[in-house]
Amino acid sequence: MRKEKVCLLLTGSELMNGDVIDTNSIMVAKALNELNLPISKKVTIGDELQTLSQEIITLSLQFEFLLINGGLGPTTDDLTAQALALSANIDLELNQTAHQHVTNWANKREQPLNDSNLKQAYLPENCHIIQNEIGSAVGFSLRLNNCLIVCTPGVPRELNEMLNKYIVPILNRTFPTRNKQEIIRIQTFGLGESRIQELIHANFPNWPETLSIGFRATMPILEVKLICNEPNGSELTALWLKKVKAILGDHVIAVDHFDTDILAKNVISYLAKDNLTITTAESCTGGLIASQITKIDGASRVFEGGFVTYSNMMKHKMLGVDDAIIDAHGAVSKQTVIAMAQGALQQANADVAIAVSGIAGPNGGTRDKPVGSVWIAWGTKTKIHAEYFLIKGERKFVQQITAARSLDLVRRMLIKSNELPQYRANN
Amino acid sequence: MRKEKVCLLLTGSELMNGDVIDTNSIMVAKALNELNLPISKKVTIGDELQTLSQEIITLSLQFEFLLINGGLGPTTDDLTAQALALSANIDLELNQTAHQHVTNWANKREQPLNDSNLKQAYLPENCHIIQNEIGSAVGFSLRLNNCLIVCTPGVPRELNEMLNKYIVPILNRTFPTRNKQEIIRIQTFGLGESRIQELIHANFPNWPETLSIGFRATMPILEVKLICNEPNGSELTALWLKKVKAILGDHVIAVDHFDTDILAKNVISYLAKDNLTITTAESCTGGLIASQITKIDGASRVFEGGFVTYSNMMKHKMLGVDDAIIDAHGAVSKQTVIAMAQGALQQANADVAIAVSGIAGPNGGTRDKPVGSVWIAWGTKTKIHAEYFLIKGERKFVQQITAARSLDLVRRMLIKSNELPQYRANN
Repeated sequence: MRKEKVCLLLTGSELMNGDVIDTNSIMVAKALNELNLPISKKVTIGDELQTLSQEIITLSLQFEFLLINGGLGPTTDDLTAQALALSANIDLELNQTAHQHVTNWANKREQPLNDSNLKQAYLPENCHIIQNEIGSAVGFSLRLNNCLIVCTPGVPRELNEMLNKYIVPILNRTFPTRNKQEIIRIQTFGLGESRIQELIHANFPNWPETLSIGFRATMPILEVKLICNEPNGSELTALWLKKVKAILGDHVIAVDHFDTDILAKNVISYLAKDNLTITTAESCTGGLIASQITKIDGASRVFEGGFVTYSNMMKHKMLGVDDAIIDAHGAVSKQTVIAMAQGALQQANADVAIAVSGIAGPNGGTRDKPVGSVWIAWGTKTKIHAEYFLIKGERKFVQQITAARSLDLVRRMLIKSNELPQYRANN
Repeated sequence: MRKEKVCLLLTGSELMNGDVIDTNSIMVAKALNELNLPISKKVTIGDELQTLSQEIITLSLQFEFLLINGGLGPTTDDLTAQALALSANIDLELNQTAHQHVTNWANKREQPLNDSNLKQAYLPENCHIIQNEIGSAVGFSLRLNNCLIVCTPGVPRELNEMLNKYIVPILNRTFPTRNKQEIIRIQTFGLGESRIQELIHANFPNWPETLSIGFRATMPILEVKLICNEPNGSELTALWLKKVKAILGDHVIAVDHFDTDILAKNVISYLAKDNLTITTAESCTGGLIASQITKIDGASRVFEGGFVTYSNMMKHKMLGVDDAIIDAHGAVSKQTVIAMAQGALQQANADVAIAVSGIAGPNGGTRDKPVGSVWIAWGTKTKIHAEYFLIKGERKFVQQITAARSLDLVRRMLIKSNELPQYRANN
């Protein structure tokens, strides 16, 4: 039977009892995908010596490369070295390189080397050491049943460092002949996955077979990936990137790696480029938009302050919204958000304002203004736009989408977009 | 060889390529842990028929109960029913109950039943249907190699519903004799895991062997679990809960299930009980505290508005902080945060205020006021407290910890705590 290539074995009771979300395998999968070495199987088991050792044997017979993650720590629960030695029927020995590493590690902390950390230097005979530049646990590798087994620490920061610096080169040496995978990542806002698929289907009947498309939704951003495993991958993806960008229009925020804060970062950088400042007047989002802006390093270049005006009294007091406007049209109305934006521009002496007022729920909805009704105003002293949205979902979702659309509307204004985003076109 | 009890098999290419974080196994692990039926092994593989079928056979020989998650959808990638039939060497048939289910599901949406959804009604002969009250994919179970195999949908909401309503009862019938696990969850803020372990070690040399302690850190809350698998579990955990609470003091926020928003919720409910209102004046947290308060349903009972005063000008303009105070002591100073709190109390006509000013970084630090320097003021018109903290970490971490401590300090004031939290005692 021909062996499959890559398997990931995760060990740790905390991964079994639901206390910890496994993010390490995401990190490994991404790194390996970029190498076009997808993981075929992922096994997670607790800290039990016999089970672990037996699993290592089984997997070493099925795979060419086995990455083990976890179980290298100083406590008695950490059994990977011992299990691997048992699987290979060899002894643990005091590894000189590892001994030096834990000694240096302890010295740096001005601690004596204790027995727990010394245990981390007892490794399977004749294994190869993989440096850990952060933590006390070195990694190591060993061949068993014609499978290269690499053991890595469970601490995400340490794994990340070791992965990029040492394991990717090991994989490149181990599997020298594969095609490199070409991936282009397009960060978008405002279109759903099915809508993008429809658009591509309708516009490109001649979509090339060798180019696959992938999605990664991380609210509120949707990443669209163009993936090609062929030798001509980079030209093909570059060509189709142009075509795909053309049909997605200004729904494309950036062609870059995913970043949670991309909307706020974009808005800040466009504002900074034009020497403009922004302010916020928030009712139903209650400070969320301001906090998304101020989360970004360098926000102070464009943001001096914002207003959280939850009650009508505060809309009047902080922003000077005329009580008569609220009485006549209600707090959730075009007139009120425009007055909020105008008040904020004036009070903060800013160039650009966002104002929102809505019913985030779960209570407070009426027949005319159901839960999820949101007015957003955005603009400058010379021109303020306002639009109504009905956002269906629970409270936090309504707040998140409102904040994201607000930032996106300002982004579109700053890049002088003359397209309507899908979420307005549907209105 | 005696079989192990429970295995979880997850299927889906999106779980292999790093695009999706697996949260379903967390959900299953928690539900099964509460039944004292821990998962012994977790296997994740992509959507490949032969591999999936072979894995089902292997695991059915090793375990008494196999929960399969994913692969029940309408597309050609969804192969679980087919793989299971192949493993059991039986045919797929049009299941009458499932057929009725997808028909009703389509009718409700006023859609004709299409072939993709009809495919979801073709299931292994003689399987038992498990209802799905939300989605189009029913679950089903089958015995193979003396292992009960239960197939569940990958959509988290559907899995959750099915798990609690149908699968927990199936497990209770399948494993009737086990001890029930007793777990008490204590939500704490302000003490680290190692500090709590030290405290327990030092105070309770007679800690019972049958009572284990577990931790679950979800920034900024640390959950401490007391776990007992013995028949007298509920008395033992109740007794030790008292003792543990006594040594943790007001670091205990609640004895309850984990909740991200617990600090804000607690503050809101204490304020509401005493008919008090709160306001916020935020510099380095930039609206984060206000947004954490307004995230909570019912925040309007206690919160009318807040101030995001990022620049000195806005501290003066919005809160009336005297420029002379900022000139003399700097924006990050005791005098400034106290003036911010006083200004906010007055401007918002609130009973309680939080004010923060600090250097979140990565830039802006000086020798006297390094990055991470934060002043927090909290109190009422009659008494405002202020304290300096040095919080080490990256920008978002400094903001998160500042927000959490601010809410915690108000919480302690509202419950009239006369203890110092660890993070103040260390100052």
